Amino acid sequence: MAEKPIWEQIGSGFVQHYYQQFDTDRVKLADLYTDASCLTWEGEGFQGKTAIMTKLSSLPFQSIQHSITAQDHHPTPDSCVMSMVMGQLKDIQNVDEFVFPSEQIWRDLALHHLLTNRSSAVNGCRHNKSPNSC
Amino acid sequence: MAEKPIWEQIGSGFVQHYYQQFDTDRVKLADLYTDASCLTWEGEGFQGKTAIMTKLSSLPFQSIQHSITAQDHHPTPDSCVMSMVMGQLKDIQNVDEFVFPSEQIWRDLALHHLLTNRSSAVNGCRHNKSPNSC
Repeated sequence: MAEKPIWEQIGSGFVQHYYQQFDTDRVKLADLYTDASCLTWEGEGFQGKTAIMTKLSSLPFQSIQHSITAQDHHPTPDSCVMSMVMGQLKDIQNVDEFVFPSEQIWRDLALHHLLTNRSSAVNGCRHNKSPNSC
Repeated sequence: MAEKPIWEQIGSGFVQHYYQQFDTDRVKLADLYTDASCLTWEGEGFQGKTAIMTKLSSLPFQSIQHSITAQDHHPTPDSCVMSMVMGQLKDIQNVDEFVFPSEQIWRDLALHHLLTNRSSAVNGCRHNKSPNSC
């Protein structure tokens, strides 16, 4: 089997790391953001590591599990990788919801640099509980 | 009301233009791609204007309408705008499907440069007919 393009290897590695950190210890996500990073959460924008981590730390759920169902990665003209990730959210404190049609669909995208030690993540996150509510 | 940030104005303008062209005359989308552009369609990758336009021109539906339900735009460190767009697809030749739960959810993302006359679109597109099939 042909080896995956480098941007797919880097993008999928970043996605695995990002959501593993998100699901196990959200505070460590601070290492992935800079003061130039942006986060959009359900249409609300946050810019800079402090504002982003304040938002992520104040999310109502204590324990969450991202179940990734699809991810696409693209190289960009300036040696970044742009990733789009889709999946479902499992609130570990409310496991039953996971198997019902009301389970959340989640989408995310991230841009990060290949040429720096620290990713400059630019995230957008949208959730919806049904195909019609997004 | 405060004026929207420049990246939101540019991003929403690009999104409106892109999907208007897609829905009215897909061939004109060629103006938005370069040989460095990428397109991922349902997980299948295409690179360069020729490959991308061959794919877009060969889509099975003749007439489609993108109904945008949400869009987020972010500035990137190199003066690009990254946009995530979500919505539903209406096959104009099969209008009845639009009102059924099986209607498609569509997600897209695009990166384009502010500092060039031509957008360098990097698209990813995923569709699904139910929350579990994406």
